[in-house]
Amino acid sequence: MQLRGIFAALTTPFDDSGELRLDLFERNLASYESTELAGYLVLGSSAEAIYLTTDEKRAVLRAAANVQKIKLAGTGEESLRATVEMTRYAASLGYAAAVVRTPHYYKKSMTPAALIGFYRDLADTSPIPIILYNIPPLTGIDLTLDATIALASHPNIVGLKESSGNTDKLVRLMAAGLPNFAVLVGGASTLYPSLCAGASGAILALAAAAPEACLAIENAYRAGNHARALAAQQAVLRACAAFEALSIAGLKGAVDVAGDGARYGGPPRKPQLPLTAAQKQALAEAFAGLRIAVPAS
Amino acid sequence: MQLRGIFAALTTPFDDSGELRLDLFERNLASYESTELAGYLVLGSSAEAIYLTTDEKRAVLRAAANVQKIKLAGTGEESLRATVEMTRYAASLGYAAAVVRTPHYYKKSMTPAALIGFYRDLADTSPIPIILYNIPPLTGIDLTLDATIALASHPNIVGLKESSGNTDKLVRLMAAGLPNFAVLVGGASTLYPSLCAGASGAILALAAAAPEACLAIENAYRAGNHARALAAQQAVLRACAAFEALSIAGLKGAVDVAGDGARYGGPPRKPQLPLTAAQKQALAEAFAGLRIAVPAS
Amino acid sequence: MQLRGIFAALTTPFDDSGELRLDLFERNLASYESTELAGYLVLGSSAEAIYLTTDEKRAVLRAAANVQKIKLAGTGEESLRATVEMTRYAASLGYAAAVVRTPHYYKKSMTPAALIGFYRDLADTSPIPIILYNIPPLTGIDLTLDATIALASHPNIVGLKESSGNTDKLVRLMAAGLPNFAVLVGGASTLYPSLCAGASGAILALAAAAPEACLAIENAYRAGNHARALAAQQAVLRACAAFEALSIAGLKGAVDVAGDGARYGGPPRKPQLPLTAAQKQALAEAFAGLRIAVPAS
Amino acid sequence: MQLRGIFAALTTPFDDSGELRLDLFERNLASYESTELAGYLVLGSSAEAIYLTTDEKRAVLRAAANVQKIKLAGTGEESLRATVEMTRYAASLGYAAAVVRTPHYYKKSMTPAALIGFYRDLADTSPIPIILYNIPPLTGIDLTLDATIALASHPNIVGLKESSGNTDKLVRLMAAGLPNFAVLVGGASTLYPSLCAGASGAILALAAAAPEACLAIENAYRAGNHARALAAQQAVLRACAAFEALSIAGLKGAVDVAGDGARYGGPPRKPQLPLTAAQKQALAEAFAGLRIAVPAS
Repeated sequence: MQLRGIFAALTTPFDDSGELRLDLFERNLASYESTELAGYLVLGSSAEAIYLTTDEKRAVLRAAANVQKIKLAGTGEESLRATVEMTRYAASLGYAAAVVRTPHYYKKSMTPAALIGFYRDLADTSPIPIILYNIPPLTGIDLTLDATIALASHPNIVGLKESSGNTDKLVRLMAAGLPNFAVLVGGASTLYPSLCAGASGAILALAAAAPEACLAIENAYRAGNHARALAAQQAVLRACAAFEALSIAGLKGAVDVAGDGARYGGPPRKPQLPLTAAQKQALAEAFAGLRIAVPAS
Repeated sequence: MQLRGIFAALTTPFDDSGELRLDLFERNLASYESTELAGYLVLGSSAEAIYLTTDEKRAVLRAAANVQKIKLAGTGEESLRATVEMTRYAASLGYAAAVVRTPHYYKKSMTPAALIGFYRDLADTSPIPIILYNIPPLTGIDLTLDATIALASHPNIVGLKESSGNTDKLVRLMAAGLPNFAVLVGGASTLYPSLCAGASGAILALAAAAPEACLAIENAYRAGNHARALAAQQAVLRACAAFEALSIAGLKGAVDVAGDGARYGGPPRKPQLPLTAAQKQALAEAFAGLRIAVPAS
Repeated sequence: MQLRGIFAALTTPFDDSGELRLDLFERNLASYESTELAGYLVLGSSAEAIYLTTDEKRAVLRAAANVQKIKLAGTGEESLRATVEMTRYAASLGYAAAVVRTPHYYKKSMTPAALIGFYRDLADTSPIPIILYNIPPLTGIDLTLDATIALASHPNIVGLKESSGNTDKLVRLMAAGLPNFAVLVGGASTLYPSLCAGASGAILALAAAAPEACLAIENAYRAGNHARALAAQQAVLRACAAFEALSIAGLKGAVDVAGDGARYGGPPRKPQLPLTAAQKQALAEAFAGLRIAVPAS
Repeated sequence: MQLRGIFAALTTPFDDSGELRLDLFERNLASYESTELAGYLVLGSSAEAIYLTTDEKRAVLRAAANVQKIKLAGTGEESLRATVEMTRYAASLGYAAAVVRTPHYYKKSMTPAALIGFYRDLADTSPIPIILYNIPPLTGIDLTLDATIALASHPNIVGLKESSGNTDKLVRLMAAGLPNFAVLVGGASTLYPSLCAGASGAILALAAAAPEACLAIENAYRAGNHARALAAQQAVLRACAAFEALSIAGLKGAVDVAGDGARYGGPPRKPQLPLTAAQKQALAEAFAGLRIAVPAS
């Protein structure tokens, strides 16, 4: 497995009453399979995993088990034991790696030592490689640079999804020269400078709505065309601003409006509020503009 | 039901391998039944509810179903549907009310409107009254004064557990003169000034370790003896500082050292780290001091 | 000097072009002299001291030098040397003590050790006693409980103005039993519970607009009438909410509307924006209500 | 004037008793003049301007008035009137532009509208162009993207020093395509990705200690050699980490150890603490390593 390229952080379809719609999830997957995406993250933050029961999580993992691209499973739970169990289940289904968010509810006790212990215990027992997942805007805690470097030496910890937006940390991580440890960033609006700084790729919510726009940035960068990469980067900003302000409802609305009918976004589960008509219209306009703005490769 | 007095926020016993020990939970309950506590909160933040499976949560609720005192169930989950389900289960077991933490993972979308919608939907369908639960140090979001006042008018929302430590908000809430709406605070170190400001009582982790020390503060206050209430308040500060710095492991250690062998604290579940020997010793000293310091009523 | 009772945190009058109006400052002082206030803080945060030149600060200190009540001078500057100089000047004018805000611009280096060093150096050389001043909402740093306790042992450090609103810290400070060390709180909306917790008094912006409303709280508390103290506390909340939301412009507007023509508030200096007509009207209504609400002693 | 390239954020020399040493400041300037730096910022945050009296600030501005390179003056004060006055003084000495930090003490009232008013009033009256200066880690407030864009249309506002480290904001600012508006970043550790994102250059504390190391990053980037730019970027990280952790004392220590005797750093003014011998030694090692690590152009 090579952790490189653009991975889509998939959404989980629900109908208007909040029921899981695996059929629509599978339809979405079929659509993504024809893109140049490197793979998918199933059950990440974009997937409302935290709103699913254990049985639902397992059903979603099974529904994506037969894709051709690299599949990553979000298996982080607050307790070590539940995380171990979900990771083993993902491994049994053939997932390439598990992306594991920092546990965070008891913030004061989630010290670097506790987090290092958590990930080492998990990596020791996991049949598949572990990718650390740091997302302070949602968790309220930060996996420090030093803790990340300490964990990178574990043979079964192979990477980090860094969603802090902290470029300084990214630069320092890359400079640490960690062998066999990939850093994937989590923000589409800073993808190009992150690649410059040394990121291997990205796991992006935007890639679930507009995969080509994300790939345009990466492809230009890989081709050494910095001017086109910067132009492609700037092209996505309006769309990012439009959906990010609306959290999961915005992302799902973007999946709806940007997929030409091939993909289903739908509403989030409650307590998240669905989009208003005005919000949907604004999203549609921002994504219509995106299609025009992305530079041809 | 009268939401008044001191409620213990119970811990959930595990053995050294992290297995749930309901027998020890029941032993603890038997010990608390002989105190003057008003009741208990089962499955609150102190209970590591977030580390329990759904089945385990139900088992813990069942284990406390037959106590004599008022029993409150912590039933908050991130999704509305899971919260509704757990609340109904608690109601079926005879719990007096449900204490429901603010959902919080998707912080940007947990606006006042979303939180108001969540609690109203829940209260509309719940067979038992709802108590709001605001704990920003763990959730990273704050249920605002205005949202709280808006929710207090719902006939099935009967109170608030306020664990922000924000005395200004407490004073303003009390001044709003909300009929049939009780405010219970969540911090033992500010219990006396909170009662002065108008709180009806408290749901306290310290009350699971040292119920008498908490009751001494409230009893002196109810008797109009402000000098003794202040002395009783000051008596608990060292013990509070000792266990609070150590999060759940500290609280469980306090249950161990302060209960004269009648109560079992034990270790927290991973990823929380167990106490070191030095930490246990420091706790024991702080709680030995507490026993001496509490003024006789 | 006894640091007890209610001190008004005075405003500094400017005309519409931002010129200092010492004549109006002196008129305000004459009005305050006939109240039961314990004294004044000149050049505090309420006084826009940070917008005054060094010469203007000295002129303001001189203008208040002959009042009958206890006068405290805000002399904190970012550098130790400038703080020492301004403190000496205040001493030469007969000020009873200097209230010295934590230096804070270089946040990372304002460690407890640096702050302890700053206050000890200052107290060693100051002809008048020093009162520590902690206001994290404006400074972005917090003078910790431990640093405060360490500083309280200095013979020339006699108290603390605590404007954090942190009741937990207040309770712990009082419990430390520091001899000859007074704690004055900085928030009118929590005055009564703060007095219960052991504060000696308060330095309040509200006391510059509505001294009687603040005194009603303290007088009831000193008389042991907790019910009336709580009612007096609740009476000021709407007025507090009205002016605090508008920062210094709101306070000055409150001085204008609440003083029956005997006191001048006026506009703040730029970059602060003056009040709109609608804001002035809302303030006037809140303070008209305050007059009615304060319980008679 | 072209706002492009690397500007050094100069330090202000003091002797061990805290006295201003303009002779050493002039010696430092002579040393910088022989580098390829684009120019200097005098009286920025690195200069402890906030610890200087008004007379001292003017003396420092005069001392640098005759340099050959582009000279920028830090003229921000909390009040508009004092900022206007200091800006006029800098203009009278021939400074090319004024770098003006956001006023910030009264955080609640420093709304976008107030900040926009402040900068427009200043720019209207200033004889020289204004560069906005946003440094949230020190000020506790953020000049928003929208406010920046609004201000960029003023003909006398020509740029922004952005020291937030927020790459997302930088990307969005560049994408806004603001004509005649330059963005200079404030952090050496993210210089290369910032240039990729479109920054014109930087104003760097590190450039006062090790100008060549900063120039190596920019030169490689300008030459289109991204690999060498990234290597040069990574080369400075250890030195950055070493001095940044120690605030101004660390920067001044770095000026001492990295200048081969040609430049004087010296101690900061109190309340900042001077470096310990161990801290000086660690700095010397980090900067010795820097000299070896910078790739040859």
